[in-house]
Amino acid sequence: MSDTTSYDQYRHQLSKIADIGYSVAILNWDLEVCMPEKSSTRRGQQMATLSGIAHEQFTSDSFGDLLNKLVEDKGLNWKEYRNIKLTLKDYEKRKKFPAAFVEEMSLATSNGMLLWQKAKKENKFEIFAPALEKIIELKREECKLAGYTMHPYDALLDTFEPGCKTKDLENIFWDVKTRLVPFIKQVFARPQNNDAFMFAEYDKSAQWDFGIDLLRKMGYDFASGRQDISTHPFTTNFSANDVRVTTRINPSDLNEMIWSTIHEGGHALYEQGLPDAEYGLPSGEAISLGIHESQSRLWENNVGRSLPFWKEHFGDLKQAFPENLANVSATDFYKAMNIVKPSLVRTNADELTYHFHIMIRFEMEKQMMEKAVSVNDLPKLWNKKYKDYMNLDVPDDASGILQDIHWSHGSFGYFPTYSIGSFYAAQFYAKAKKDIPELNEKVGEEEMKKLLDWLRDNIHSHGRTYNSDEVCVRVTGESLNFNYFMDYVRQKYKDIYMF
Amino acid sequence: MSDTTSYDQYRHQLSKIADIGYSVAILNWDLEVCMPEKSSTRRGQQMATLSGIAHEQFTSDSFGDLLNKLVEDKGLNWKEYRNIKLTLKDYEKRKKFPAAFVEEMSLATSNGMLLWQKAKKENKFEIFAPALEKIIELKREECKLAGYTMHPYDALLDTFEPGCKTKDLENIFWDVKTRLVPFIKQVFARPQNNDAFMFAEYDKSAQWDFGIDLLRKMGYDFASGRQDISTHPFTTNFSANDVRVTTRINPSDLNEMIWSTIHEGGHALYEQGLPDAEYGLPSGEAISLGIHESQSRLWENNVGRSLPFWKEHFGDLKQAFPENLANVSATDFYKAMNIVKPSLVRTNADELTYHFHIMIRFEMEKQMMEKAVSVNDLPKLWNKKYKDYMNLDVPDDASGILQDIHWSHGSFGYFPTYSIGSFYAAQFYAKAKKDIPELNEKVGEEEMKKLLDWLRDNIHSHGRTYNSDEVCVRVTGESLNFNYFMDYVRQKYKDIYMF
Repeated sequence: MSDTTSYDQYRHQLSKIADIGYSVAILNWDLEVCMPEKSSTRRGQQMATLSGIAHEQFTSDSFGDLLNKLVEDKGLNWKEYRNIKLTLKDYEKRKKFPAAFVEEMSLATSNGMLLWQKAKKENKFEIFAPALEKIIELKREECKLAGYTMHPYDALLDTFEPGCKTKDLENIFWDVKTRLVPFIKQVFARPQNNDAFMFAEYDKSAQWDFGIDLLRKMGYDFASGRQDISTHPFTTNFSANDVRVTTRINPSDLNEMIWSTIHEGGHALYEQGLPDAEYGLPSGEAISLGIHESQSRLWENNVGRSLPFWKEHFGDLKQAFPENLANVSATDFYKAMNIVKPSLVRTNADELTYHFHIMIRFEMEKQMMEKAVSVNDLPKLWNKKYKDYMNLDVPDDASGILQDIHWSHGSFGYFPTYSIGSFYAAQFYAKAKKDIPELNEKVGEEEMKKLLDWLRDNIHSHGRTYNSDEVCVRVTGESLNFNYFMDYVRQKYKDIYMF
Repeated sequence: MSDTTSYDQYRHQLSKIADIGYSVAILNWDLEVCMPEKSSTRRGQQMATLSGIAHEQFTSDSFGDLLNKLVEDKGLNWKEYRNIKLTLKDYEKRKKFPAAFVEEMSLATSNGMLLWQKAKKENKFEIFAPALEKIIELKREECKLAGYTMHPYDALLDTFEPGCKTKDLENIFWDVKTRLVPFIKQVFARPQNNDAFMFAEYDKSAQWDFGIDLLRKMGYDFASGRQDISTHPFTTNFSANDVRVTTRINPSDLNEMIWSTIHEGGHALYEQGLPDAEYGLPSGEAISLGIHESQSRLWENNVGRSLPFWKEHFGDLKQAFPENLANVSATDFYKAMNIVKPSLVRTNADELTYHFHIMIRFEMEKQMMEKAVSVNDLPKLWNKKYKDYMNLDVPDDASGILQDIHWSHGSFGYFPTYSIGSFYAAQFYAKAKKDIPELNEKVGEEEMKKLLDWLRDNIHSHGRTYNSDEVCVRVTGESLNFNYFMDYVRQKYKDIYMF
């Protein structure tokens, strides 16, 4: 018979730890959206205190004893057992890092972020270099502490994409190089489409209203969330019933609001679809960054950048901006939003060349963990890769190696999840279109409702009971397969660029 | 020699506890200002978890041992010693309440708030009565646990106004009855002034702008705070560098925005003036509710409802609302904002009859703690007192005994601090006007800067190093003396009502 008392105790403890963790998230949302400037030092301290308490509670010996006792409990049902196994894995991983190491990392990354900001502002990599060197050294130490069998980088990947190995990524990026690159070259050979009207003057408040309406149509529940403005758009959640998004509105570039709104909306629909009854448990949490990104990109790219979507919604957009779009058709708009061209900055890239940016970062991170490159040589290496892969000359560090914040807060192994997410998205959406054939014709409110139900049933409602690969096999019948992405882009861009 | 290590340890521990406490405050601000509706259950739970951790850390035996060791340390300076003494007093008080009692109270008040809301909505005291009975029973238990020598109610007063006794309040309200009441009768005998123009249509966004400007002129630092809209205006702080106010804007009553802005602004100036270096320590905290209220009321009544203030600022108001105020002079406006008349609802009362409302609540709370009245008889008693003191017939429970939320969350002993605050305010402001004679003539930005500096030097910067009485004596040369309030109202209202 199951030891329900102990399982309840486990649930209760995880729920308390989630309360603390989500409180940190609330403090962080406030920091990004509301906080007055002079509050930053105390806020950092308040967040560190709460994080410390959550870590302490999670890694306490008594909690470990409870987990080790429960994992032997033959009376648990399968889902309960799975929760315990996952929590035990998290517990064992976190226990591997001594408090002194965690503190040193926290110090190095706080310092790293400050110096990265300064370096970016002054456009000088040397300012950031010593801090980055320290962070890389600590990340190597982290690989050792966490342990790995094949490649040290595996240990870092596991944090963001459990189970994903360096070898898997090498295979995926081999596909990118050998299959996507030749295709992109074909696209580059074609005459470019026009997107000048995207950069006319678009009234900010009309943009805001359009974005809110888009979220509503996608099925985002405003009784369980809200949208605000922030410098960098993001999604955060404090339970499945409080999932917030932010956006950014550029009065002379319609792209920013539209794509950030749909992208963050996709993340938010995932979090709103997690089972609130499983609050704090693995079965109530998202699977991985890759699967999270599959949701945001499925909505942003497969849905949002498709013709069936804009055939339904372009009328509303035209109504909001009648002057700017007077002579623009849904098809013109569709072509403009899907322009492919080499670019220096990842966040502005189209959905094809985007993967060059990720590949470059992946290759460099791998080398850093292998100690195959010195920190001072990184800008040179970066610039060489942008020349080799995209034939671009990087004019300075700010638009080159200093463009992303990630390394400054120690997020190595994070970038690849962006590419994986896109590839999962293509595979999921191919299956969704088979199950809901209407999606091939038009994507209005009704079809999006069906799509959301499908995502909820197949992915959201399971939390992380299944891992990325298990979910992918359950939903699509096979593991991640790059063919789906290639099929999707081939069909779409041959049509757009007419070849 | 001082044991600095232990004192640093104490500082560090209080700083951590403050981090948790202020995090609860951030969650609560978010709840009042931003939170989507479905988030409320989880939010309540998240706040309870953090509060529980803060309580646990504060009442831990190891912290008690540290305090008891430090209080014997002869090497501490006077301020350090004072901090330890105050924390030890707080510690000993909190230790008196067993965890089971705290939990029962928390349950009773959660339930109380729900039933009070329902009762108020349905206008039926009976719905709230059983919950209130339970709360009163627990408050009596709290008096016993906390201990008292003279009157059980003393124990409750001590939470909000340390050192204040039931006897002191009886003396103060004796003054109210024997001196303020006859004066108010003289006012009532005079012809009433006109305030109809206060209730014209006032554009909400112009009101908002005017309020923001008022706060700025008062010296409120927007880099250390912000203003938002909420149902009930309030002030909250997460350090001296993050002090937030909220306001309420009624398009057909200019009073709401103006008085809530100046009142909350007064609270906020106090919090922004506390020494940030003493974060978490008694020397970095406000003295008491009474002194807090003295700051809000000094700004609201003594400054904001004065002629020298509006002589300086009425021009700006007239510019913001030229049509509504075309035929209104600064003096007309001054008379309109100071209309005295009996009223059923405390929060709408003028600064004279306001104290009837408080006296009624004080007398009833005392009786509840003495077990001198049964819960079912409370509405009758309430209505009788409104008849006796203000010759008003209370038409129903919603505008009678159910009007305030305070009893539903167990805040007994809170109301009297509102009156005390007004009386302290009059005494402080009389001294401020002696030290800064310009205040008698005009209160523009420059004079408010001087006043704020004076308040910072004399009151804000000391935290609760001195208690209410000590601060009052240090600043004004004597303990709280009702004469100052009487002198202030006599001079002001004789002039306004011309007798």
